[in-house]
Amino acid sequence: MILENLKGKQVILASQSPRRQELLKGIGVDFKVLVKNGIEEDFDPEMHFSEVATYLARKKASAYNQEIADNAIIITADTIVCTDNDILNKPADRVDAVRMLRCLSGKQHKVITGVCIKSSMYESCFSAESIVFFKDLESYEIDYYVDNFKPYDKAGAYGIQEWIGYIGITRIEGSYFNVMGFPIQMVYEELKKF
Amino acid sequence: MILENLKGKQVILASQSPRRQELLKGIGVDFKVLVKNGIEEDFDPEMHFSEVATYLARKKASAYNQEIADNAIIITADTIVCTDNDILNKPADRVDAVRMLRCLSGKQHKVITGVCIKSSMYESCFSAESIVFFKDLESYEIDYYVDNFKPYDKAGAYGIQEWIGYIGITRIEGSYFNVMGFPIQMVYEELKKF
Repeated sequence: MILENLKGKQVILASQSPRRQELLKGIGVDFKVLVKNGIEEDFDPEMHFSEVATYLARKKASAYNQEIADNAIIITADTIVCTDNDILNKPADRVDAVRMLRCLSGKQHKVITGVCIKSSMYESCFSAESIVFFKDLESYEIDYYVDNFKPYDKAGAYGIQEWIGYIGITRIEGSYFNVMGFPIQMVYEELKKF
Repeated sequence: MILENLKGKQVILASQSPRRQELLKGIGVDFKVLVKNGIEEDFDPEMHFSEVATYLARKKASAYNQEIADNAIIITADTIVCTDNDILNKPADRVDAVRMLRCLSGKQHKVITGVCIKSSMYESCFSAESIVFFKDLESYEIDYYVDNFKPYDKAGAYGIQEWIGYIGITRIEGSYFNVMGFPIQMVYEELKKF
């Protein structure tokens, strides 16, 4: 084990995302998944885009205050997709998914993931920002993706690690894993402090 | 199937890399793997770094001229890792792998993949360039990676999709899949032309 300081501690990942679980596992952390439902993902619409993801991650973490035993570390995260004027959440339905992908086609957008890591003694909240460039997507490519991959659990209606990421994304600037939903390099460095 | 134009054609991927096979599969192409050994990966040391990968991909493709039946399409690729002054190939041994990772630590470098796609009628050769930024790697992180992941089949002695990529890479500019060894978005667009 590389993060020796976590020995004897109980790491809890409060996220249902299989991508986040895979990435946290990938840096060799033993953890369990515990997800509370019913945490509202609302925020002040006046809030600047860059603050929203960290705000939501911190809000999720505060819902777990009761669970933080002396030796526990809770990790929460929230990923948002921002176009010039808008935040794209998870698509409501097929029409909404197609609308989002049309909106991302041929342009760049930002993906911001906020992360909160919290023990009874210490809290670290931070965010990472990546820029993603999509080629001009053909209508049949959007239809094919939505019908075959059903990206309804994904902010912005796409997963960079899926077919649409292979054929549609020409370039990124920043962390690829952040676009997947978890800036794992930063998480690793922050976990060293616990 | 999305690349309808490939129907009835025999796509051959001339690469042993499991990453390239996974990426080509990921865009829905049916293909078989056929690898000829003994193709020398040498090049004129006067050649500019940016030309080397395409040169090597084209050289590999020319070794398959006999295999290109009327309906066949052959795909070859070569990935190189370039520091300011040097091209890093696959490491010869443990000492060489550690030396390469020390050389990449705390700096940015370029990853260039050249690809050649060739039928009896048409040839398309191109390359993609990504910039990769490593944090300052600790000695124990380099040792842990080399001992556990044995990156002897990888140019530059690392795989971005492995532990060292998770904990060590702070940023990329360009295509992530190109750093994995195959600029799949460009390959997809080029395959449309066959």
